[in-house]
Amino acid sequence: MTDTVRRSTAENAQLALLLEVSSTPKPGNVDRHRDHDDLRFEHFVAGAVGAREGLDRAAEGAPVGEAFERAVAGMSGQTGGNTQFGAVLLVVPLVRAAAAGDLTPESARAVVGRTGVEDAVGFYRAFEHVDVAVDDPPDDLALPDVRRGGDAAPELRERGLTLSDVMAESAPGDGIAREYTEGFERTFRTADRIREGSGPVTDRAAAAYLAALAAEVDTFVVTTHDRETAEEVRRRARAARDGEEDPEELADELVERGINPGTTADLVAGGLFVALERGLVV
Amino acid sequence: MTDTVRRSTAENAQLALLLEVSSTPKPGNVDRHRDHDDLRFEHFVAGAVGAREGLDRAAEGAPVGEAFERAVAGMSGQTGGNTQFGAVLLVVPLVRAAAAGDLTPESARAVVGRTGVEDAVGFYRAFEHVDVAVDDPPDDLALPDVRRGGDAAPELRERGLTLSDVMAESAPGDGIAREYTEGFERTFRTADRIREGSGPVTDRAAAAYLAALAAEVDTFVVTTHDRETAEEVRRRARAARDGEEDPEELADELVERGINPGTTADLVAGGLFVALERGLVV
Repeated sequence: MTDTVRRSTAENAQLALLLEVSSTPKPGNVDRHRDHDDLRFEHFVAGAVGAREGLDRAAEGAPVGEAFERAVAGMSGQTGGNTQFGAVLLVVPLVRAAAAGDLTPESARAVVGRTGVEDAVGFYRAFEHVDVAVDDPPDDLALPDVRRGGDAAPELRERGLTLSDVMAESAPGDGIAREYTEGFERTFRTADRIREGSGPVTDRAAAAYLAALAAEVDTFVVTTHDRETAEEVRRRARAARDGEEDPEELADELVERGINPGTTADLVAGGLFVALERGLVV
Repeated sequence: MTDTVRRSTAENAQLALLLEVSSTPKPGNVDRHRDHDDLRFEHFVAGAVGAREGLDRAAEGAPVGEAFERAVAGMSGQTGGNTQFGAVLLVVPLVRAAAAGDLTPESARAVVGRTGVEDAVGFYRAFEHVDVAVDDPPDDLALPDVRRGGDAAPELRERGLTLSDVMAESAPGDGIAREYTEGFERTFRTADRIREGSGPVTDRAAAAYLAALAAEVDTFVVTTHDRETAEEVRRRARAARDGEEDPEELADELVERGINPGTTADLVAGGLFVALERGLVV
């Protein structure tokens, strides 16, 4: 009666995306109990289904940029828009590392270190599949504007910019890029929090989300709103974590104000993947 | 910006399983807002992830019994127990039909008609992967007890029982088997209801669930409780559908009483799959 099949690495990655959106309360994000007006739970579910082929390819050893682009192309086959761009960006190198052997900060860092110019091209091409909120580039931009998509390929090639280079340049303003450059430190810490918790996995992931949101400013909120709003969100997440504010009410309020700390949700998806690979039982 | 990838047949099947559990209120079943004590939303999500490999195989042309057994083996890789056994049983022949060409009641019926003895063996083997609630067999049983699992294979082979035969014998007491024998009539009707609705897909699926529950006694409730309880559920579903009872309260009550109309939920999963194949947009 227990003749089951162990989940594969790609299956764990897909499950991580689904458990992330199922976790509640996750103030400001779509979760099991909350939708934004045009971005609903069903869009995230469809996004996770569509992303699977790219995750499969990553597990089979496809280059990070190629697997990422395919995952985003599949993820985009729903009408809600950007659901898991950042989560997939975070998870793909981790899938590569896990499929090749032990998943550790070191092995994940090594995958990033081995990315090349064509991985950067894949990353840029992924922006053709879905509208991603990005800041206007500053005048002294060190990178081609991502909104150019695949048209940036000649420049990337000419300048020899790898995906690792692109992430290093983006790290100051983007929490996911920072994970690439800092050995996925917050992702692994989030995984530990989830594994050390007890009870339903979605409750543990929600608690890990609140802890991460309380710890650092969400860069997606900085991009889509401003730093002041992002600071407010962090302050109030801390209050919710410490029992001084009701996280359910904070969740309702942030959704109403359209404030969506998406980078922190992406971190939780990454943390769930690492936790599942390290034995988290669902 | 709209350079996306069309969902494959197997992806639509997986998405159908996920949208089914995401739909709310679905009185008595786990849904986006309700868990049973030991059978939670996260178990259904993991079940849908694990089922994918079997669905992929069905889409690639694997025999129904083999694909079904693999889907159930993968589905069972979570600790909640039976999540989508009936839904997968319903969807696998539909996936075969869709992958081979047009998905119609006729093409689905033809897939069932072509099943053989080894498909029946696969069906029996699937019971080794997960505990499925079944009635004690009557004394004059025309079929081997499914709880024998693969041990029934010699008898199935000796008697030349096909999966189609097994479903025909099971049809009186099992709503999914009845779909096999009656050209998936309720499944296609449910698909039409979902496609004709408007608003979020999960709201439409919840309405289709209530309509189906009001129309016929849920055979899983008959099996796990008794006919009287199943009749009560149908009567009250009708009242909820007609606005005479609050479906949210009915959902809370049935979950509290541990009454889980699982066959009707399976029908909705099947209906979602057909609707997605026929152009339902998420």
